[in-house]
Amino acid sequence: MLIDQTMVQKAESLIPELMTSPAQPKAVIEIAADDKAFQGWRIDQSEDQNWKERVLGKGDSFMLDFEDHMVGFLSLKIKPVGSPPDAPLKLKLTFGEMPCEIAESFESYKGWLSSSWLQEELMFVDVLPAEIKLPRRYTFRFLKVEVLDTSVKYKVSFDEVICTTVTSGDVSKVKPLPSEVSGELAEMDRIAIKTLQDCMQTVFEDGPKRDRRLWIGDLRLQAQANYLTFNNHGLVRRCLYLFGGMRLPDGAVGACVFEKPHAHVDDTRLYDYALFFVSCLHDYYEASRDRDTLLELWPIAMQQIEIAVQRLDEQGIVTDDETWWSFIDWHADLNKQAPTQGVLIYCLRQGLELARTIGDADQVKYIEGQIERAVSGAIEQLWDDQQGFFVSGTDKQISWASQVWMVLAEVLPAEQSGALLDHLFEAPPAIGMTTPYMYHHLIEALFSVGKQEKAVEQMKAYWGEMIKDGADTFWELYNPEDKKLSPYGSNLINSYCHAWSCTPTYFIRKYLI
Amino acid sequence: MLIDQTMVQKAESLIPELMTSPAQPKAVIEIAADDKAFQGWRIDQSEDQNWKERVLGKGDSFMLDFEDHMVGFLSLKIKPVGSPPDAPLKLKLTFGEMPCEIAESFESYKGWLSSSWLQEELMFVDVLPAEIKLPRRYTFRFLKVEVLDTSVKYKVSFDEVICTTVTSGDVSKVKPLPSEVSGELAEMDRIAIKTLQDCMQTVFEDGPKRDRRLWIGDLRLQAQANYLTFNNHGLVRRCLYLFGGMRLPDGAVGACVFEKPHAHVDDTRLYDYALFFVSCLHDYYEASRDRDTLLELWPIAMQQIEIAVQRLDEQGIVTDDETWWSFIDWHADLNKQAPTQGVLIYCLRQGLELARTIGDADQVKYIEGQIERAVSGAIEQLWDDQQGFFVSGTDKQISWASQVWMVLAEVLPAEQSGALLDHLFEAPPAIGMTTPYMYHHLIEALFSVGKQEKAVEQMKAYWGEMIKDGADTFWELYNPEDKKLSPYGSNLINSYCHAWSCTPTYFIRKYLI
Repeated sequence: MLIDQTMVQKAESLIPELMTSPAQPKAVIEIAADDKAFQGWRIDQSEDQNWKERVLGKGDSFMLDFEDHMVGFLSLKIKPVGSPPDAPLKLKLTFGEMPCEIAESFESYKGWLSSSWLQEELMFVDVLPAEIKLPRRYTFRFLKVEVLDTSVKYKVSFDEVICTTVTSGDVSKVKPLPSEVSGELAEMDRIAIKTLQDCMQTVFEDGPKRDRRLWIGDLRLQAQANYLTFNNHGLVRRCLYLFGGMRLPDGAVGACVFEKPHAHVDDTRLYDYALFFVSCLHDYYEASRDRDTLLELWPIAMQQIEIAVQRLDEQGIVTDDETWWSFIDWHADLNKQAPTQGVLIYCLRQGLELARTIGDADQVKYIEGQIERAVSGAIEQLWDDQQGFFVSGTDKQISWASQVWMVLAEVLPAEQSGALLDHLFEAPPAIGMTTPYMYHHLIEALFSVGKQEKAVEQMKAYWGEMIKDGADTFWELYNPEDKKLSPYGSNLINSYCHAWSCTPTYFIRKYLI
Repeated sequence: MLIDQTMVQKAESLIPELMTSPAQPKAVIEIAADDKAFQGWRIDQSEDQNWKERVLGKGDSFMLDFEDHMVGFLSLKIKPVGSPPDAPLKLKLTFGEMPCEIAESFESYKGWLSSSWLQEELMFVDVLPAEIKLPRRYTFRFLKVEVLDTSVKYKVSFDEVICTTVTSGDVSKVKPLPSEVSGELAEMDRIAIKTLQDCMQTVFEDGPKRDRRLWIGDLRLQAQANYLTFNNHGLVRRCLYLFGGMRLPDGAVGACVFEKPHAHVDDTRLYDYALFFVSCLHDYYEASRDRDTLLELWPIAMQQIEIAVQRLDEQGIVTDDETWWSFIDWHADLNKQAPTQGVLIYCLRQGLELARTIGDADQVKYIEGQIERAVSGAIEQLWDDQQGFFVSGTDKQISWASQVWMVLAEVLPAEQSGALLDHLFEAPPAIGMTTPYMYHHLIEALFSVGKQEKAVEQMKAYWGEMIKDGADTFWELYNPEDKKLSPYGSNLINSYCHAWSCTPTYFIRKYLI
């Protein structure tokens, strides 16, 4: 990997102190199978709410509901009841963002992501009474406490269960919404901010439950929402230096970085994600006007442009292939060529703005040339005039993603882009959208061509539905038509607080107030 | 409970510093089902011994053999292999003193002792590489390491697995055996000392795996072996002050005490165990000549005698009952009356010696009177002249335990006691012996009447057989005729390093050199 130690050190010097706050469980619940409930599980209040009075022996359990999304550290106070404890206490804890994680056995999980993400602990407590501070961070709303064994001579009671939450998002910095935004949109704003806050730790994590990493695709959206809410420029700057300071061997920005045991970049390479370094830097400068950082990181952004355009073929089209080369959306059948062409042009335009800010005429000229090349290629090779859609790949696939990114890339004049979006809703292609990340770009495209009403309608149809389905924070994956959808083989492992879903607050605060 | 804080503080001031020593695994093994092997499990060496070179992914595992009994703290060094770890490592560790604990699923355990004693850990390692020091103490020879999950992007290797053993038994204080003792007896001595050493921690534990407590029945035998080996008087003194300083409400010494979170006595009351406070103090004084401790603790010993004789009925016999009132042996059908009568007389005689040492004429006279009363009762009520055995309880049960304890109590003249033991072997009663604890008393009885040859023969037939069955340390329970015997419902939970089994070294060093 290509390491710039000075940049990495700068990133590390920007590690924020996390704010902590204690949270108590609010209710004792039971979870019942119910076809009408989200994902088939209904939450019922238990008749006996006095969990601190319960005396638990072998096989006894209870479920606590914190009634909000938690990211933090759990501590427990446990006392023995009966004779002096003559054997360890064997305890199992199960944490769930959603009822499914508590109700369905983790043994049943057969997905392809590691089962190690499922949050559980098997604990042996040798000495009682005990005050236990669990060392790992958990992300949950629901906690199941199971006493697997005590002994015939004693049982246990729980005196205290506390979650010490952590975040680098200071909610006191968030301006209240003006009174013109209320009801459903205000609720959407609140939940989006909570989503962002829970992902704001020592980096902008993608999801605090899974996989807790800094991905540049997520960072771009989080940063946009952050500028209009928590306004934590230092955390964005830290993330930019992490990506800039640790790159793949040819200089390309990696898709994600890890913080521990020391900062290191993953070996995942995604074409669109590398380009988003340009976009992130563009947005950061626009929000902060921090010219020093721009000057230091611009050469790396420029390098991303240079690496990216090498993939353009003779016709000015991004070369397609069969591997997982570009992200765009979690969709097994989606061809990535045309939407990626859109991402390239979108980022070239932002790069051009930065090159003009820097004042490097050669770079300006170079980027202008590349934009022309890529836009011409898109129109000549990918626009299907008969169908009125952009097509992608050798099979000329028509997808939502292709149209959305071509609109964002401003490949067509604004009026034509607007018509394209209308056409998209009138004759929706079979290859739809899977993630809030892709929905974000649809909404952004709608706002970009002035279709505010349609944008709000779509926000309500998507994030609004999540709220109706019980979201405390917005989810990584959501399909109103298939509520157990998971690209990983099981909805147990989906992240239910996910960075790329936090953008309703961005839309509301940017376009609606 | 009756607490004498000064005595408890004296006990706590005597907590020893533990000696530590690092131990490495010696071999990679497999465990195979084999009817001919002890408890049905055979240990095979693995073809591939290079466990540090192994790369383990989901579902991979290996078993390490430390080739000796360990009591200590485990540390692991784990490194990732492949891409940067993008999910926690999910790891399971299973510790076994014996192959059965590794080969048989803990899920299968249905015994009545708490399953929390079965030594396993489910661990999630969030950051790799990792150096992990597990906080709990384990007792084992075999360690199974199972990688339950990594991710599709990485696997792991283990750089180091170390057990830091702990003990308060300083082996440098143990005198080497003279050359006249060799072969099987020397091996028995070595293993007995190792057994004692592994039980010597901050108290004399009964078993370092289970239940890690100070029981006075075990203490008595451990202390006897200790005086002839490690000679750690301070640890015995600490244990005497723990029992003396924390008693049951009427002043009786409790059966066992716990050290943590602070010293406290259990609510278990056993008639024979309370009396053994007298015996422990007697033996301690004999070994140490520590008159100050004797003077301080004698009133408590005297109190045990006074409490004990209250149970004598008009005929001078200890009142029997249906509860678990006296220990004697783990034997469901054993009637405890006659053997307990033996324990009482045995302890009265030791109390008499102490009263004479103290020089309290009234107490001497009182104890002499009680001995006469109890011995008369035993001979008149419990001796069956026709059968030539002592009988016990309303059903006049004839057991090994009754005869053994009556011999140790010197109820009959020495010659008659010798004849009784001969008769015991010629016409063995159906109610036999279960534990090494009871076997100890048989051997002691044989030595006490000068039957050295028979004693050695019995030692070889019992502890010698354990050695042939693969004992690294001597076991809590052993029956050469039923090798899976357990009073707890499963041999998985038996302790395979147990205090009360350490006495071959005492016999060898007291009677054979």
